[in-house]
Amino acid sequence: MGETIFTKIIRGEIPCQKVYEDEHVLAFLDIMPLSEGHILVIPKEEAATLDALSDDAAAAIGRVLPRLCRAVKAATGAADYNVLQNNGAAAHQAVFHVHFHIIPRKGGAGLGIGWDPGKLDPARGTELAKKIAAAL
Amino acid sequence: MGETIFTKIIRGEIPCQKVYEDEHVLAFLDIMPLSEGHILVIPKEEAATLDALSDDAAAAIGRVLPRLCRAVKAATGAADYNVLQNNGAAAHQAVFHVHFHIIPRKGGAGLGIGWDPGKLDPARGTELAKKIAAAL
Repeated sequence: MGETIFTKIIRGEIPCQKVYEDEHVLAFLDIMPLSEGHILVIPKEEAATLDALSDDAAAAIGRVLPRLCRAVKAATGAADYNVLQNNGAAAHQAVFHVHFHIIPRKGGAGLGIGWDPGKLDPARGTELAKKIAAAL
Repeated sequence: MGETIFTKIIRGEIPCQKVYEDEHVLAFLDIMPLSEGHILVIPKEEAATLDALSDDAAAAIGRVLPRLCRAVKAATGAADYNVLQNNGAAAHQAVFHVHFHIIPRKGGAGLGIGWDPGKLDPARGTELAKKIAAAL
């Protein structure tokens, strides 16, 4: 993969409204927010999708998520929120550098979720679980 | 918070189609999947929402996400997928024990996303970023 706009933001070549930074992670306001306080949490490591990110970078993001969620709640007063991370154009990814959205849900503003579940067939589930576990 | 169905799954009192387990994390097939290979990744630590989860438990989940994503991709053949973690009833949370969904996007199946962005006002953004950073 090549560089994205996020690489330039990490390097400080493009400005951002920063809320947090450490050795591995940068967090800043989304400039096209779904609601007030919508932030992006990104690894400094360049990876297009989560499956391509190193374990260490992913752990560093995981570690700061609770703290960032608390700060977004405190600053916005939103009690509810979604954490979303999209991979691939068909899954709504627009910038091909891993990013976790933290999106407050307040009034009508926030992430719209379409949820049309099926029902897991037990036999098919057993087969599928084995297949995923074998691929680990 | 009290125990949820996930506590019983962690204890083995309710069965699941397990795909992964370590000291801190359990992953299993969602029984109401949005698409084939939809899994849930949960901490063994009891916390209703991500903001209430310990840093160590959140880091442990972060660390295994890339590996689980690769396995779901390999087992299902889906190239694209969403990682979603909901907090609060208004944000579509149904079980009040932290869980990350990994949801393959394949054909029409997967997570429906409603995205109605605004535009960040720079002055308001500066104020908001400061407020979030101060709350960290």
